[in-house]
Amino acid sequence: MTGTVRIIGIDPGLRRCGWGIIESTGNRLAFVAAGTVTPPTTTDLAQRLANLFSALSDLIGLYRPDEAAVEETFVNQGARSALLLGQARGVALMTPASLGLPVGEYAANLVKKSIVGTGHADKDQVQLMVKTLLPTAEFKGADAADALAIAICHAHHRSFRKLAVGA
Amino acid sequence: MTGTVRIIGIDPGLRRCGWGIIESTGNRLAFVAAGTVTPPTTTDLAQRLANLFSALSDLIGLYRPDEAAVEETFVNQGARSALLLGQARGVALMTPASLGLPVGEYAANLVKKSIVGTGHADKDQVQLMVKTLLPTAEFKGADAADALAIAICHAHHRSFRKLAVGA
Repeated sequence: MTGTVRIIGIDPGLRRCGWGIIESTGNRLAFVAAGTVTPPTTTDLAQRLANLFSALSDLIGLYRPDEAAVEETFVNQGARSALLLGQARGVALMTPASLGLPVGEYAANLVKKSIVGTGHADKDQVQLMVKTLLPTAEFKGADAADALAIAICHAHHRSFRKLAVGA
Repeated sequence: MTGTVRIIGIDPGLRRCGWGIIESTGNRLAFVAAGTVTPPTTTDLAQRLANLFSALSDLIGLYRPDEAAVEETFVNQGARSALLLGQARGVALMTPASLGLPVGEYAANLVKKSIVGTGHADKDQVQLMVKTLLPTAEFKGADAADALAIAICHAHHRSFRKLAVGA
């Protein structure tokens, strides 16, 4: 019915930025790759953000996704933490857009709801469901699993959006 | 005594991002250029951040500054505003670093203190002192003036740092 769309999901963070790439063909999903970018903490903030930009640019150049999806961070800590997280998130949003990819943003609880069926799932449940939806997926840790969950959420919602637009 | 250093100062913001370029030779300062980047508000956040990245990259390519300075934003609003501002600030810090420039960060009250002599100066006082310190400066609005003030602050502090290291 539809062609294959390759999607990169990004779970933004300055210390650990998860990424996961899937392919969506109709209602079938396939795992491509996943991992975590960990910019060195020894350099200053500007350089750490530049390292994040460079790593994400390289991944997009290597895997050539068609679209990107980034988690809309829910901020429940103070303004200072929000500012720090915002800086990493700005780079995570900007990098795929600057390389010409459409970028979807999804609230964390929508991502969980898409994967687990409830907006209040814990990290273990998300990992388990990512493994169920993408049986061949190989990843280490919660950040890469979250990034794959964001990509899956985008795969679901982009077709809904398309149907809505095409109706 | 020392060579000429060209500095770009950046006052980060998603709606209006001020920039100002000066040259510092010993204790002399000279105005080069200043302005404001206003990414179109009609596109989505990722595209607006990509526009900011592209505009700042173009300015750095055009004026070839040696160093950059970005205001360390003081957040007195809620976590949501801090997250939004952080996203623009992440791109403002990352862009010069990704192009190989050292990036200094300065707290807003230190910038004001360097220019006006007090950390609580208002925008009119900053503009007046920027005009006094850079008599040939041509700029419109507070954002460009703030960016020039950040560049001047960096010019002062980088020589202090150099002296301290060289002692």
